[in-house]
Amino acid sequence: MEKGLIQIYTGNGKGKTTAALGVALRALGHDLKVYIIQFMKNRKNSGEVLISEKIPNLTIFQTGLSGFVKKGDPQEEDIILAEKSLELAKEISSSGDCNILILDEAITALSFNLIKTDELLDLLKNKSEKTELILTGRDAPPEIIAQADLVTEMKEIKHYYSKGIQARKGIEY
Amino acid sequence: MEKGLIQIYTGNGKGKTTAALGVALRALGHDLKVYIIQFMKNRKNSGEVLISEKIPNLTIFQTGLSGFVKKGDPQEEDIILAEKSLELAKEISSSGDCNILILDEAITALSFNLIKTDELLDLLKNKSEKTELILTGRDAPPEIIAQADLVTEMKEIKHYYSKGIQARKGIEY
Repeated sequence: MEKGLIQIYTGNGKGKTTAALGVALRALGHDLKVYIIQFMKNRKNSGEVLISEKIPNLTIFQTGLSGFVKKGDPQEEDIILAEKSLELAKEISSSGDCNILILDEAITALSFNLIKTDELLDLLKNKSEKTELILTGRDAPPEIIAQADLVTEMKEIKHYYSKGIQARKGIEY
Repeated sequence: MEKGLIQIYTGNGKGKTTAALGVALRALGHDLKVYIIQFMKNRKNSGEVLISEKIPNLTIFQTGLSGFVKKGDPQEEDIILAEKSLELAKEISSSGDCNILILDEAITALSFNLIKTDELLDLLKNKSEKTELILTGRDAPPEIIAQADLVTEMKEIKHYYSKGIQARKGIEY
């Protein structure tokens, strides 16, 4: 693979995590090695976790608790877990042994004050050139955007959540 | 699966096709049946085509010619191929034998005048309730948006194409 870059999918619309998963699918077709760390998530029955059990080149770590993290009121346990996830992410991203590393909701963890901007910047700085790094989550701060090669804002034009439709198996997880 | 809805990923930013592919990956984890029709595309070495050869529940049809279609100057052959693709899409979407149907670049085919808005509206109207339909492509017209349950605009904030970086294997295809 060519030199790995840094991509960010942010904004309030649906498609941030799935865009990252789509990059993963495509890369897996070329037999590349893909790691996904899902910050603040813990759903062992999600489609991405289930399929990773069948695809050797795809490894997923879910590092959150089962409940939702409340913005503005992070618990000590949430912070410890997010910091540990970032350590794991640093290890993988600097190892040179990974083609695509997706840090799903890492930007959200940042905006929820679970991890520090400086620590994420440090990870970006020390990333192996062999690794394409993909960050997702709402409210990407300008310091992180400045370091990215590609940034797409997913903007919600219309969403069925407003019609009262809940998260659906096979679609949202 | 619950009642299938209609999703649109549009806008000028990266992530439209990959968001659709990410929905596919997730659905495949739940053993759902996924069909993808890629309008105006013909790249047999793309990651999505390569991995579809290994995943029985994933079927991809690429219905374009190998070259690019020129906007504003559609050739007869391009129009015939796009119309045939839409016929195929109608068949699959109304059959009830498909959980996720992705019409990749169908919106682009519309804005390139390869297919007609009325024909696409007809497809949306006759879609099976068992099928989640996902459309991608720039410049979604208001009549189509009106029929969708979810619309996300992918907005380009920053793109490495502007630095002269070309489409990369494993990332863009």
